[in-house]
Amino acid sequence: MKIFLVYVHPNPRSLNATLRDHAIAVLKREGHEVRVSDLYAMKWKAVADADDFPERDNSLPLEYMTASGEAYETGTQAEDIAAEQEKLKWADAVVFQFPLWWFGLPAILKGWIDRVFAFKFAYGYKNAGNTYRYGDGALAGKRTLLSVTVGGPEVDYGPRGINGPLEHLLFPMTHGSLFFPGMSVLPTFAVYGTVKVDEAGVDAAKHALEARLVHLFLDEPTPFRAQNEGDYPDRHTLAPHIAAGISGIPAHIATRLPNVLATAAAMNFVDIPETEYDAEE
Amino acid sequence: MKIFLVYVHPNPRSLNATLRDHAIAVLKREGHEVRVSDLYAMKWKAVADADDFPERDNSLPLEYMTASGEAYETGTQAEDIAAEQEKLKWADAVVFQFPLWWFGLPAILKGWIDRVFAFKFAYGYKNAGNTYRYGDGALAGKRTLLSVTVGGPEVDYGPRGINGPLEHLLFPMTHGSLFFPGMSVLPTFAVYGTVKVDEAGVDAAKHALEARLVHLFLDEPTPFRAQNEGDYPDRHTLAPHIAAGISGIPAHIATRLPNVLATAAAMNFVDIPETEYDAEE
Repeated sequence: MKIFLVYVHPNPRSLNATLRDHAIAVLKREGHEVRVSDLYAMKWKAVADADDFPERDNSLPLEYMTASGEAYETGTQAEDIAAEQEKLKWADAVVFQFPLWWFGLPAILKGWIDRVFAFKFAYGYKNAGNTYRYGDGALAGKRTLLSVTVGGPEVDYGPRGINGPLEHLLFPMTHGSLFFPGMSVLPTFAVYGTVKVDEAGVDAAKHALEARLVHLFLDEPTPFRAQNEGDYPDRHTLAPHIAAGISGIPAHIATRLPNVLATAAAMNFVDIPETEYDAEE
Repeated sequence: MKIFLVYVHPNPRSLNATLRDHAIAVLKREGHEVRVSDLYAMKWKAVADADDFPERDNSLPLEYMTASGEAYETGTQAEDIAAEQEKLKWADAVVFQFPLWWFGLPAILKGWIDRVFAFKFAYGYKNAGNTYRYGDGALAGKRTLLSVTVGGPEVDYGPRGINGPLEHLLFPMTHGSLFFPGMSVLPTFAVYGTVKVDEAGVDAAKHALEARLVHLFLDEPTPFRAQNEGDYPDRHTLAPHIAAGISGIPAHIATRLPNVLATAAAMNFVDIPETEYDAEE
């Protein structure tokens, strides 16, 4: 299969670099083709602005969304944006390797989303407003995995940990950016406590990531609810009987089936007593 | 009082620009001093990298956190970072005016956090690890307000709206970045449906923002739980009796007092029937 690895770290001797190198080796060993975007090495332009539209009359005030859609449709986007979109279209799966900074994406990665996920491509698909989103769109059928390094200890990101659960903090990326144009998002892979990690910790992280990469096309994606499969009858709000009594982020994870329950529980999206499902499922 | 306005939009004729101009006029009329950082106009450097440490030997691999702390302590940070920190220290309140892009901050604003919120300044305060965080730190005593424009309709951001509640999406910024170094974070002010907004909508948005700005020092902040006031006895996890049975983001909002209940309910953090508290409180 074809794997697109988006790599983000300013230090070529970082744990992130080690995990990137190991990921490439494992993916190739598994028989995959691998392409890499190293955003720092590429000096990726993080800031969305008028320079993204080289053929537009930029003496006019910039309405970024409109300009983005026009440039996408007319093939006049900045070359770096078009190149990343081409890699996304090429890929069967996209893996992101990055450090968690201030409980979110490093700015250079957020700027990759802001610029590459153009109007008419990642939103406004088929020129049909919000008809195709959350489970359907230009990237439907592709898988994606976040591989994140986290400075603090895992306990701080537990269901009742002081920082909030990691999957809640990353929900704007997983659900809002990746599931939105149709990708199947795997539960996040995280290495915690990276502020102080020894050689054994690095080895453990490499092995744990390897296990996830070997199962890249086998693991159950996070069961985010698709917009167009009935849970949101008006395409805006959950039907009253869906996740009844639950609001906020956890309501958007389907919990109908035992294996799905287990996935959601493992992600700290919901607390589910083990007795509610057959552990052998 | 002293107000620091951080403004983010690439289009000087945008709704955000209109709201910025109105905010400045209102704040001055109220007798405040106002300083503005217009990140796009400043061509703010969004990407955290070795160039942030002009006096460091950057032939060595970059450990950003360490370098950041050393540069802060020795007064050798990049000038643009030091200037923004000075404005933060000067201010009694910080107002952020920006558009929601892909359910989070525009990259240029995330890069402002990544770079300005240096080690030893915004985290690792007093060289004491995580002793001072979440309610205590270098920015304690200051207030902050996010003023956000949102393209989609408000219903999509309701308690069970398809995008997730806005305050959950912004939790990494409000709780994780602003409350972390001690700021009191006001409930977010949002204008929805900005993809199509007419003159009356702009007027309504200006009036609504004005009402919030007039109450900048009067409104009740979001009652995020302080790390060092007992709710997290080990500084990592909520005590079992605090928000018992609740996990995820809503658990970190205190809901002890009627006015606090009302605030939390208004923010969609928790659903609270009106009968649970005296509406006249």
